[in-house]
Amino acid sequence: MNLSDRVRKGDIRAAAKLITMVENDFQHAQEILKELHQYCGKAIVVGITGPPGSGKSTITDRLTKHIRKMGKKVGIVAIDPSSPFTGGAILGDRIRMQDLSTDKEVFIRSIGTRGHLGGLSRSTQAIVKIMDAMGKDIIFIETVGVGQSEIEVIKVSDIILLVVMPGMGDDIQVIKAGIMEIGDIFVVNKSDRDGTDRLISEIEMMISLNGHKKRNPSIIKTVGTENLGIDRLWKEIERLVVILQENGEIYQRRRNRIKKEIYDLFLENWQELFLQFIGEDRLENEVERVLKQNSDPYFTAQELTKDFKVKFLKGGN
Amino acid sequence: MNLSDRVRKGDIRAAAKLITMVENDFQHAQEILKELHQYCGKAIVVGITGPPGSGKSTITDRLTKHIRKMGKKVGIVAIDPSSPFTGGAILGDRIRMQDLSTDKEVFIRSIGTRGHLGGLSRSTQAIVKIMDAMGKDIIFIETVGVGQSEIEVIKVSDIILLVVMPGMGDDIQVIKAGIMEIGDIFVVNKSDRDGTDRLISEIEMMISLNGHKKRNPSIIKTVGTENLGIDRLWKEIERLVVILQENGEIYQRRRNRIKKEIYDLFLENWQELFLQFIGEDRLENEVERVLKQNSDPYFTAQELTKDFKVKFLKGGN
Repeated sequence: MNLSDRVRKGDIRAAAKLITMVENDFQHAQEILKELHQYCGKAIVVGITGPPGSGKSTITDRLTKHIRKMGKKVGIVAIDPSSPFTGGAILGDRIRMQDLSTDKEVFIRSIGTRGHLGGLSRSTQAIVKIMDAMGKDIIFIETVGVGQSEIEVIKVSDIILLVVMPGMGDDIQVIKAGIMEIGDIFVVNKSDRDGTDRLISEIEMMISLNGHKKRNPSIIKTVGTENLGIDRLWKEIERLVVILQENGEIYQRRRNRIKKEIYDLFLENWQELFLQFIGEDRLENEVERVLKQNSDPYFTAQELTKDFKVKFLKGGN
Repeated sequence: MNLSDRVRKGDIRAAAKLITMVENDFQHAQEILKELHQYCGKAIVVGITGPPGSGKSTITDRLTKHIRKMGKKVGIVAIDPSSPFTGGAILGDRIRMQDLSTDKEVFIRSIGTRGHLGGLSRSTQAIVKIMDAMGKDIIFIETVGVGQSEIEVIKVSDIILLVVMPGMGDDIQVIKAGIMEIGDIFVVNKSDRDGTDRLISEIEMMISLNGHKKRNPSIIKTVGTENLGIDRLWKEIERLVVILQENGEIYQRRRNRIKKEIYDLFLENWQELFLQFIGEDRLENEVERVLKQNSDPYFTAQELTKDFKVKFLKGGN
């Protein structure tokens, strides 16, 4: 059996091999991804984000265990700024692996955020596709941070959970405001702590100020470590997915995802050509000139652009 | 007087006008940035990052007040995921403004992380350049989050502080590991709290594991809200800047910054051409085909690339 057939049968080793290929040799990997594409689109992709310390991993793990009892197959992609693309599992990952890895229907992969943004987004989309083709019913994409690149990546999800917790000071205000608009469900985790009611009031206030949205996000209280609220959270996810499917929003989100994917791939195809054209020596020379104040970056970039046009573009000279 | 002369005289309104131009009409702005470039390079750029809630803004503000007493002129760029490029000040910003804005030698700008990564990096570099040309001695770049794009942006700094705090659970481990390598000084803030000693031991352990680095990062304890440790932190920044200047590292960092700036600008020049070439209609059609499983994103991107080559590149057909 070839690699794509093995992935489609849910073969974990085949999937792992293909993911490594995505990271190290994308040109080759995309030939297999092409074959898999037609078998995709069945999985529901759930993005989970929120500030550090809010308990995103715990929520992901609890949800996973909850829906495994219903027989659903699960994929987890952890966007993890601390690990390079090809790097090994980090501490948290290893603990998680021990906990969930005995279950063969749960497939977990970490993906680092070093390297290029396009690369991260491209790799995440490829891994989601592979898990989808493997027959996973639910794919969680979990971010460690809430930076811009993580937000960009998580936007490919069908539905997005924002995990927050009480008592994080002013910074949480800032973060909530920034990622507010992408959230479908607010998960108020660690809700046995002081400040929960105040946090919920604040969220409700922000939601009411944000009146232009079609649908207000839901708010669900959980205590991940105690497994409290997980069943209600899952029911809310299911309820919302049905709504989003019926009103066409999931279709629209998938459209946007594909659009972004095509554009990212197209840009990626050009980057190499550019780098070859500029060449390391020339770039070093230009940097030296700018450092010595004999040029500036804007002029240099304009000259490079002009030069590229003359050399490569039809009618450029 | 023209705009660039006014900026060089430290005129706040002129600088604000130019920054707005950077955000809204970069093509025009870069003609003025070109003029300013030759007057830049004197300011020391200090990056300040760390997880939400660790007190980065407080540290930035305290350091600012501390060095204002020495007569140093200060610029602050806050990388803020919650505000769009053109948006108004957010809550924290307004509080800060009230506090520091009476001082005319402190110039503060927030910059949002919505929009393109290249754009964010480009805008930050431009704002730093403007503040540098204004005659600021020290420019702080402060991030709200610790996502990949924030890290990319803060890499343009001459020296980087990582602000951490005790008692943030496991997530902090992950974050520290991820941004560890870019930090020159660990600022253990809120060091009057329980867990400070343990956190410092953990940092020391990580530093010792990371033995391939030329120089170990320093660790400085602070309590930002009480203004404790700020003088020691500043002395350590000054000490390190001298070391980094003498061993050529700051020169190397500025080289890398310029290299990245040139390449980003070059890529940016091409994006528009690509978008025009693809066209909204064609992209929509391709998305539709992929959604209906009549094509896949990889094939589509390859076809677009081929087509672009045939139409635009010499020898492409």
